[in-house]
Amino acid sequence: MPVYSISHVENVRVCVVMVGLPARGKSLIAQKIVRYLSWLSIKSKCFNVGSYRRKLVSCDKTTAEFFDPRNENGLKYREEALNSALKDMMNWFTEDNGVVGILDATNSTRARRDKILKLCRENYIEPMFLESWCDDKDLVLQNIADVKTTSTDYVNKDEEYATKDFLQRIKNYEEIYETMDRETDSDLTFIKLVNVNSQVILNKIESYLESRIVYYVMNLHIKPRCIWLSRHGESEFNLTGQIGGDANLSERGWRYAKKLPELVLKSFGEENKHTNLTVWTSTLQRTQQTASFLPYKKKLQWKALDELDAGECDGMTYEEIEQKFPEDFKARDDNKYEYRYRGGESYRDIVIRLEPIIMELERQENILIITHQAVLRCLYAYFMNVPQEESPWMSIPLHTLIKIEPGAYQTLVSRIKADIPAVSTYKEKGTSQLGELATGSTIKSRDLIKDSECVRNSMQQ
Amino acid sequence: MPVYSISHVENVRVCVVMVGLPARGKSLIAQKIVRYLSWLSIKSKCFNVGSYRRKLVSCDKTTAEFFDPRNENGLKYREEALNSALKDMMNWFTEDNGVVGILDATNSTRARRDKILKLCRENYIEPMFLESWCDDKDLVLQNIADVKTTSTDYVNKDEEYATKDFLQRIKNYEEIYETMDRETDSDLTFIKLVNVNSQVILNKIESYLESRIVYYVMNLHIKPRCIWLSRHGESEFNLTGQIGGDANLSERGWRYAKKLPELVLKSFGEENKHTNLTVWTSTLQRTQQTASFLPYKKKLQWKALDELDAGECDGMTYEEIEQKFPEDFKARDDNKYEYRYRGGESYRDIVIRLEPIIMELERQENILIITHQAVLRCLYAYFMNVPQEESPWMSIPLHTLIKIEPGAYQTLVSRIKADIPAVSTYKEKGTSQLGELATGSTIKSRDLIKDSECVRNSMQQ
Repeated sequence: MPVYSISHVENVRVCVVMVGLPARGKSLIAQKIVRYLSWLSIKSKCFNVGSYRRKLVSCDKTTAEFFDPRNENGLKYREEALNSALKDMMNWFTEDNGVVGILDATNSTRARRDKILKLCRENYIEPMFLESWCDDKDLVLQNIADVKTTSTDYVNKDEEYATKDFLQRIKNYEEIYETMDRETDSDLTFIKLVNVNSQVILNKIESYLESRIVYYVMNLHIKPRCIWLSRHGESEFNLTGQIGGDANLSERGWRYAKKLPELVLKSFGEENKHTNLTVWTSTLQRTQQTASFLPYKKKLQWKALDELDAGECDGMTYEEIEQKFPEDFKARDDNKYEYRYRGGESYRDIVIRLEPIIMELERQENILIITHQAVLRCLYAYFMNVPQEESPWMSIPLHTLIKIEPGAYQTLVSRIKADIPAVSTYKEKGTSQLGELATGSTIKSRDLIKDSECVRNSMQQ
Repeated sequence: MPVYSISHVENVRVCVVMVGLPARGKSLIAQKIVRYLSWLSIKSKCFNVGSYRRKLVSCDKTTAEFFDPRNENGLKYREEALNSALKDMMNWFTEDNGVVGILDATNSTRARRDKILKLCRENYIEPMFLESWCDDKDLVLQNIADVKTTSTDYVNKDEEYATKDFLQRIKNYEEIYETMDRETDSDLTFIKLVNVNSQVILNKIESYLESRIVYYVMNLHIKPRCIWLSRHGESEFNLTGQIGGDANLSERGWRYAKKLPELVLKSFGEENKHTNLTVWTSTLQRTQQTASFLPYKKKLQWKALDELDAGECDGMTYEEIEQKFPEDFKARDDNKYEYRYRGGESYRDIVIRLEPIIMELERQENILIITHQAVLRCLYAYFMNVPQEESPWMSIPLHTLIKIEPGAYQTLVSRIKADIPAVSTYKEKGTSQLGELATGSTIKSRDLIKDSECVRNSMQQ
């Protein structure tokens, strides 16, 4: 039985063609769009022309003069890289049923954009140009600093050399760059972002998918900030192995609540100890009790952060569910992401109701979210690009604070354990016993987060 | 216990300052924004300077020359009208805790806009300019046709005279009109819509509220279309008086399903009998069974259209709820919009989950929605601007098709009854008995929709 979310209303395929000089944040925007759409189950992929070029020519040979518009050898390789990327993208649309492909390159000239436009139209794919235009020097310099330390083009290169060479490369592009223009390009579908999004020009945005991408991009900011995630403290239902409900914290759960302010402080580091943050909880008692000792003034309750609704199984143990609905129990194991409890929800349903929360999180700065196992898995999957088939099986133990630091090319995750014992609520795939009692520091095999690990997500240039 | 939806994250007050020549759809956009935000419980009000002017000067005296920029008498009255509107708006912000006020006027010159800007800033209100700019002659002529037949300025006037005078009035405004401009107005927060929304320019859109308004306006279209609403046919749970669940249709419910295609055809009128439409249902069986005989190819199921979740009361009768949870039963009667079933939902929760559906409905053309009593009440409340305290008490009988035709200044509602008996599921406020059996044509006292009535909603210039 197919159930539709907004994304399925149309039968449209979109090619997002990035446009912009180097160091304008194009790759970051492209990767974020892919991550957001994939999380919403819209099949998306980024095709970075630079990576294709690096397969053709070694980075040692692509110093600034390679990008000189008069360098015929450079032009040849760059054209070849573009063609390979376009070919792969068109195959992906056809053979893998791709929905949103992103062509990540400078696409600096109208001639080049016309070529892409023509190819898209021949293949019945809607081209949408997304230009990042920037004349704010500080923003550009900040981007250059990011690129020179993280770009694959300058691995093992001296920083001073990298900056100088990169600036020269930008100059080469500037010579021929043609910005998108409301008059000249009035027939095209495009978004032009001026200095991140202090000004946005939209032209002929028509399909729903395009308007979703526009709205998402409009809400991005680039201020550094952190997101903290925690499950509520151990609840009385956790002790009895019951799911759902609106139970109070257990005695150990209250101990976690009392310790949480200290864990948050510890996560700041000394220099940021006065950082302010906003606390978001669900409407259920156990999350609010967990937040009750936090000294921050702004605490908001969100219905959208409530735990997965188990419908008829609400208040039952896994054992009882297995006895009463053996087929459902198995169906859930077979496809946990899609399985919807009788009269309740699936992981997919949670993602749909979390979408406005994600949009708001993109807008906000420091936020601490206290929520529930399934919801936290979905939020974590968004930030860390965890595939759908894995996310419902991630182990997110009780009494552990997770700190996420989104960066331009990598996202750092650290985990601060409270060292207060709690039951494990983790049910491994294919098993039929209840979660056994364990001390708080137990880490399961499917645990995807390692302590204080620097997790580089898929945001690579 | 305050529960937050997205709209409550910020503590921002916004004054939307409309900008545009006459007949550019400003009032329509302004009214739609007010309706949308009010439905989301964001306190909003439109202040139309024209109405203030009409209180000062009779319409007989405001022929085109009154609007000549050299007419000092005209200028005096128009300035006075603006000042009164601004005064009332500022009072409304302060005394009535207004959140989004819309100043609906041409606001044609920078001098005038600067005056409004200054006043907003003095009162800590964020000014957001919304210009509707239009050089598509057909669009303008269509708007003029609407205005001359509906504007209060030309009541009882000859159509030809009205058109001529109105065109001259527009000319007078054109003489001094200064459009919003990315360079000159780069410090202001503004949206500029070019020819409805074929091009949109956004400048310094910063707060969440502003971005919501932008996204809503971006999704509006002006093609004529209809929305049909129907509850599912009578279900087996309706017969036993149980709420919630996922029951099948009763025998009479199936009769309604079989008759529905004929009712839809009847609603088209002969000239439109081949109109195509898309059918949306919930994920519950009774709505899909009701849709099963409709000949339209495109049928989508939406989880967001599922009935209000009654939580612990799911499957119970009102009598059983009253016996088991007498306090809840009373609390629901006292504030039905806010009351949330134990482990279930409130009307407010439904509105939050329906918001993406409304956005999608604004984008689409002809849609027939088969859903449930509470959800249909919320959808109807959006289209007809029904206040929160009334919407949960509206009577929407079974076996009745509702057709809504949104227009520029009025929305037409007609109701087509199937003449197939069904139980009444309506429980009047303050009563404690079960809904009695009734024939399908019974109309209750709180019934807000009259048959084939032309309902003029609050969209008045």
